Amino acid sequence: MAIIAHLLSTTCSLDVSSSNKLHFKSINQCSTPIPTSFNMGISFLSLKNLSLQSKRSAKYVIRTSVVSMSQKAKTHNDSGSQQTADGDSSRKKVMVIGGDGYCGWATALHLSNKGYEVAIVDNLIRRLFDDQLGLDSLTPISSIHNRTRRWKSLTGKDIQLFVGDICEFDFLAEAFKSFQPDAVVHFGEQRSAPYSMIDRSRAVYTQHNNVIGTLNVLFAIKEFREECHLVKLGTMGEYGTPNIDIEEGYITITHNGRTDTLPYPKQASSFYHLSKVHDSHNIAFTCKAWGIRATDLNQGVVYGVRTDETAMHEELVNRLDYDAVFGTALNRFCVQAAVGHPLTVYGKGGQTRGYLDIRDTVQCVEIAIANPAQPGEFRVFNQFTEQFSVNTLAALVTKAGEKLGLEVKTISVPNPRVEAEEHYYNAKHTKLIELGLQPHLLSDSLLDSLLNFAVHFKDRVDAKQIMPSVSWKKIGVKPRTVAA
Amino acid sequence: MAIIAHLLSTTCSLDVSSSNKLHFKSINQCSTPIPTSFNMGISFLSLKNLSLQSKRSAKYVIRTSVVSMSQKAKTHNDSGSQQTADGDSSRKKVMVIGGDGYCGWATALHLSNKGYEVAIVDNLIRRLFDDQLGLDSLTPISSIHNRTRRWKSLTGKDIQLFVGDICEFDFLAEAFKSFQPDAVVHFGEQRSAPYSMIDRSRAVYTQHNNVIGTLNVLFAIKEFREECHLVKLGTMGEYGTPNIDIEEGYITITHNGRTDTLPYPKQASSFYHLSKVHDSHNIAFTCKAWGIRATDLNQGVVYGVRTDETAMHEELVNRLDYDAVFGTALNRFCVQAAVGHPLTVYGKGGQTRGYLDIRDTVQCVEIAIANPAQPGEFRVFNQFTEQFSVNTLAALVTKAGEKLGLEVKTISVPNPRVEAEEHYYNAKHTKLIELGLQPHLLSDSLLDSLLNFAVHFKDRVDAKQIMPSVSWKKIGVKPRTVAA
Repeated sequence: MAIIAHLLSTTCSLDVSSSNKLHFKSINQCSTPIPTSFNMGISFLSLKNLSLQSKRSAKYVIRTSVVSMSQKAKTHNDSGSQQTADGDSSRKKVMVIGGDGYCGWATALHLSNKGYEVAIVDNLIRRLFDDQLGLDSLTPISSIHNRTRRWKSLTGKDIQLFVGDICEFDFLAEAFKSFQPDAVVHFGEQRSAPYSMIDRSRAVYTQHNNVIGTLNVLFAIKEFREECHLVKLGTMGEYGTPNIDIEEGYITITHNGRTDTLPYPKQASSFYHLSKVHDSHNIAFTCKAWGIRATDLNQGVVYGVRTDETAMHEELVNRLDYDAVFGTALNRFCVQAAVGHPLTVYGKGGQTRGYLDIRDTVQCVEIAIANPAQPGEFRVFNQFTEQFSVNTLAALVTKAGEKLGLEVKTISVPNPRVEAEEHYYNAKHTKLIELGLQPHLLSDSLLDSLLNFAVHFKDRVDAKQIMPSVSWKKIGVKPRTVAA
Repeated sequence: MAIIAHLLSTTCSLDVSSSNKLHFKSINQCSTPIPTSFNMGISFLSLKNLSLQSKRSAKYVIRTSVVSMSQKAKTHNDSGSQQTADGDSSRKKVMVIGGDGYCGWATALHLSNKGYEVAIVDNLIRRLFDDQLGLDSLTPISSIHNRTRRWKSLTGKDIQLFVGDICEFDFLAEAFKSFQPDAVVHFGEQRSAPYSMIDRSRAVYTQHNNVIGTLNVLFAIKEFREECHLVKLGTMGEYGTPNIDIEEGYITITHNGRTDTLPYPKQASSFYHLSKVHDSHNIAFTCKAWGIRATDLNQGVVYGVRTDETAMHEELVNRLDYDAVFGTALNRFCVQAAVGHPLTVYGKGGQTRGYLDIRDTVQCVEIAIANPAQPGEFRVFNQFTEQFSVNTLAALVTKAGEKLGLEVKTISVPNPRVEAEEHYYNAKHTKLIELGLQPHLLSDSLLDSLLNFAVHFKDRVDAKQIMPSVSWKKIGVKPRTVAA
């Protein structure tokens, strides 16, 4: 199938030095001129949104993507949705914020494949983090422009792109008014606990970015699309490790002879996890005060890399992080096994969490969208399928690795985090099952597949990125360079 | 007593227009030149901290205050503390962030009077809010420079001034390194629920300012003064109005046969109250991860205006807010009674909250400082002395007003907030009592005094500021001007 959408990309940069002097490269100084005749497309970032970001220490890149009207018309005629009996207007429109990330990209493709009209909103800053920290996905990933172009060429389905920062309300407002979503899936947050614990500026960035971004999404829904269902990615880490069962968002407490059902107490253990706690409180308030309809998906640790859609073409392949900042337990262990690095268990390894296959992430989000919360309802689902301790995962990977002829060792490294290493953990996760989730439980075949995937790309591994270098206790106020 | 400190104040302004263009008036363009020969004082904001604040919509004013070395030396010789047997080094040093505000100013003077070495850190933005919204304190208040000068002249006691924004870490770091506090009392937040509900930009400002400011204080303690005790002002509003008893910060829950003591669930009902919930979670984490010692004072609604210290001179008088944005229930009712305006009960008036006299605010903070939390302890006290419903307060003010010959009427106005108007409310508040708090319970004499105070200043009342104009449900994304 031919590539129909022809996306032009123009990059302008805004440098903010540490001395708070602004060096602004005007549009006219950008190397690629913007073809104004194309400035009417489905996907754009208005130039007036090139606002100053002096609070942040990094270099920000804003892309402008345009597509011609003739291309747009052609695109519309090619819609492949099974739900399009009477035209596009009948399709549910889903905005995926953070749609270029690990969970977001898989979700955007899955929803598009299922007939939803999908738009991705992303400032692509996750790619900048990799550049700045000297990290890279195990898998080579294409640009978001190439990804969506390839998806269109393979399936005939459009995914609209809005490239910009949701902390800039003007940008988000334009995206809302243009796309008019029926549901917003919000993955668009800094999502690494270690990243948030690198230094003060990244701790502050994480909380500012996540909390203010989510506030802006709530205001955009209230102002422009009040029936829109917010599906927000939370984390099981919001609950911490209490010595009682973890319920789904709320707990009924009988105290001094009276009873009430209250938000489940939160004990988050990084500035990242805390940012999600803050989001949850803010969203709950707006449901009550404004009648927002919201689902908070308190997701466990996601593993795996392939979904039906990302497996269709190498340009659609998802990212797989194995480094100590963005990598998570099971994925990281598989890569370590593939390259002959000992599995790095932090401390005693009794840390138990909920886990799920990325194929279930996309399924859960689809279920949430298909069964929206009521106006004013703040609904919380615990989104995972099984609990494992770190030691159990290490044992499973060791066994699967040996079957493939890999020699797998495990070492205990000093725990860079502040967390209980042996604790009670029993978290409920029935609500998504009740709505139809059919879990992909962790199996030998998944581990085989993931290990083979890791072996296939093992030459891309930078072994220096495996050991943890971010300490919960040593975090300081000076900006830290974590480059390789 | 002579005024010893001669503080020079220079103002430079930085305009940030809504179109994100920066108009920067350089130091050289300021109307008042900075006398460089004075640039070695106890109190300063380095010019390098004049950083850009493009995220905020308002006009920011940064003051530079200097004092000559000869004045400084004289100041030291005049210390009047009873604890100064072997010099200043034996006195406990308390940094009062937000020390120019209603609770902060009373607390700073009280602690100074009790022999603590006090520094005030404040960006004075509360005064700017009054200017921008067309509001004013019922009582005429002096500049912070005149206030501290007058305090020195009356008592011989120095209060150091650090004028700047704690969201600017460089500024806060300089203040910490210079003053080296043993305790930090943190009042330095946007503290009005209605202000946070005016429009999107003020909601975002409130959460950014409060959450990031507190993060910076935590990082400053960790980096520069790890033994320092953080006394943070929270609010009883963090708990909301659950249908069970409210405990002090934690609740022991037995659930499915297991028991744990967990953070009390939070149900805040404005972006302001939510910001304090976020702070509490952040602080609790740093106590656990870094060993910070912290006391969270979940304060009720404060009433009254006179404390022993602010009553000493008209230049020390505290602010008294009666408007619908910054005024709080009892103070507002007294001013309404004084000017013949009906008492404005929001909705049914069954809203019940904890209240305390401002003389108990200063006493509670002193008690917290004198009995610091342990390293790693996150201690929560509910800081109020009595519970009242709004209807009860209206009845008390009516009765007290009639004794003074005032005709007092009460009207119910549509509730601008989203809150239960009839509900169970029983909040514990024993921990401060156990540490020695001797409450000033609400009495006829206090009401008489407050009413007489209001009558004395009634010509300063702007009746247009009394009725609520900020709606929890109607808040929008467009910047709103709430000027008179």
